[in-house]
Amino acid sequence: MQAHETRLRVRYAETDQMGVVHHSVYLIWMELARVEYCKAAGCNYRDLEREENVVLAVVETHCRHLAPARFDDEVIVKVWPEAANPRLLRFGYEIRRAEDARVLATGHTKHVFCTREMKPAKLPRKYHAVFGIQPLSGGR
Amino acid sequence: MQAHETRLRVRYAETDQMGVVHHSVYLIWMELARVEYCKAAGCNYRDLEREENVVLAVVETHCRHLAPARFDDEVIVKVWPEAANPRLLRFGYEIRRAEDARVLATGHTKHVFCTREMKPAKLPRKYHAVFGIQPLSGGR
Amino acid sequence: MQAHETRLRVRYAETDQMGVVHHSVYLIWMELARVEYCKAAGCNYRDLEREENVVLAVVETHCRHLAPARFDDEVIVKVWPEAANPRLLRFGYEIRRAEDARVLATGHTKHVFCTREMKPAKLPRKYHAVFGIQPLSGGR
Amino acid sequence: MQAHETRLRVRYAETDQMGVVHHSVYLIWMELARVEYCKAAGCNYRDLEREENVVLAVVETHCRHLAPARFDDEVIVKVWPEAANPRLLRFGYEIRRAEDARVLATGHTKHVFCTREMKPAKLPRKYHAVFGIQPLSGGR
Repeated sequence: MQAHETRLRVRYAETDQMGVVHHSVYLIWMELARVEYCKAAGCNYRDLEREENVVLAVVETHCRHLAPARFDDEVIVKVWPEAANPRLLRFGYEIRRAEDARVLATGHTKHVFCTREMKPAKLPRKYHAVFGIQPLSGGR
Repeated sequence: MQAHETRLRVRYAETDQMGVVHHSVYLIWMELARVEYCKAAGCNYRDLEREENVVLAVVETHCRHLAPARFDDEVIVKVWPEAANPRLLRFGYEIRRAEDARVLATGHTKHVFCTREMKPAKLPRKYHAVFGIQPLSGGR
Repeated sequence: MQAHETRLRVRYAETDQMGVVHHSVYLIWMELARVEYCKAAGCNYRDLEREENVVLAVVETHCRHLAPARFDDEVIVKVWPEAANPRLLRFGYEIRRAEDARVLATGHTKHVFCTREMKPAKLPRKYHAVFGIQPLSGGR
Repeated sequence: MQAHETRLRVRYAETDQMGVVHHSVYLIWMELARVEYCKAAGCNYRDLEREENVVLAVVETHCRHLAPARFDDEVIVKVWPEAANPRLLRFGYEIRRAEDARVLATGHTKHVFCTREMKPAKLPRKYHAVFGIQPLSGGR
């Protein structure tokens, strides 16, 4: 349930002609950090999709940019669950440059559980702990 | 100063294995709609960068996803300035599927004017009308 | 069976810090030109995938870059089938800048027909004309 | 001068609706393997661009796809210089899945040295060894 950190190296193709990383790339970094978070918490997101037919559809993204990332920078993406129930998840993010720990961006994403056919789904019970979903009182 | 609409066709490469457009792509569509907005308002963004050394750095993005876009859908991106002064801009967006006018996403982006060296800059006066920046009273 | 031309406008996100379009983007442009080619020839690629469970998997790409494309350039992608049989397709491409007709790139791609499960498939007979596949003599 | 291997994990955003990695992504992987190759050989590509105003423009790409990469696969990109002189470079690539060493793709890229203004340039002498450029006999 704790925060998880993923390190990555900025790719040349991720820059634009402003000489910095294009802002759309931060959402891709957040996504790969979510996948690594799940793995660290004992849930392989690939299996969740394949075996349970449950996908984590993105319903909201938000990102605040404080300083630019540049080609070949090492970047640390910190991710943590901010809210979770069997229908909905919210993750928070902080993206720092490894070299000097400068915060480059902060953000959050919201997700709902769906089937691959985009129908609402509930996260199977065995995955609840991964996302910090509390058992309901009253023992249901 | 009005809203501007841009039409585009979803590319195969914009989809992911969920069978829908990846959420990061919406930020790219918002960007191309901004560029078309500027053009329609009489400002070529390319010239702004090249001739005035002024870039429009993204400082915040927000997107709410209501329904998925799919390969080969025709999509309409509506953009309008929500707030503007010589230092800062805010745009609003609504993204609809052309076929049935269903709203797929809404969002906003915030921008500051910078030089290419990422120093703060002020938008040259002649571009103010493009973004609906009002002349100050008192005639400064 | 003739060549087909698609026009597009270079997106900001397609540039890199060299100030030109990233070379990987040309493959995406070739792909969207293929889709438009099919449409012009009477075959909706989306339906081919959905209704026939036939996908056109890429088995080879080649691109020669002669001059760079830049942000906001209008670009024309010309595509034509170079070889076709019910198992395999080869397309040729020429990518020009609209403004001065300068050739920016040339290339080709090779494809095999597969099912979505990546098993070999044959293109249904009714689509043969789209890609210029000749009926066999002997009337099979 | 030897081959260099880079490992990476397939990102969700790199897949398309066929359920496999989009073919344009392989060029991005080749690029990041080139950057790591240079680093391993003692040349930081970022510094080459920044301090020497020399960029390595891509003039040709070729890729043969043998099997698809999928989300979350670990992939190994092997890269080696195939030909090199102070004006032109050619790299070869082999891309394997780490799990079973299956070759997913092979390819090559050709490059010329340019200035950032896209004028031809010669690679500074001190970088020759990085790319295996032989000193000319006769001592020029």
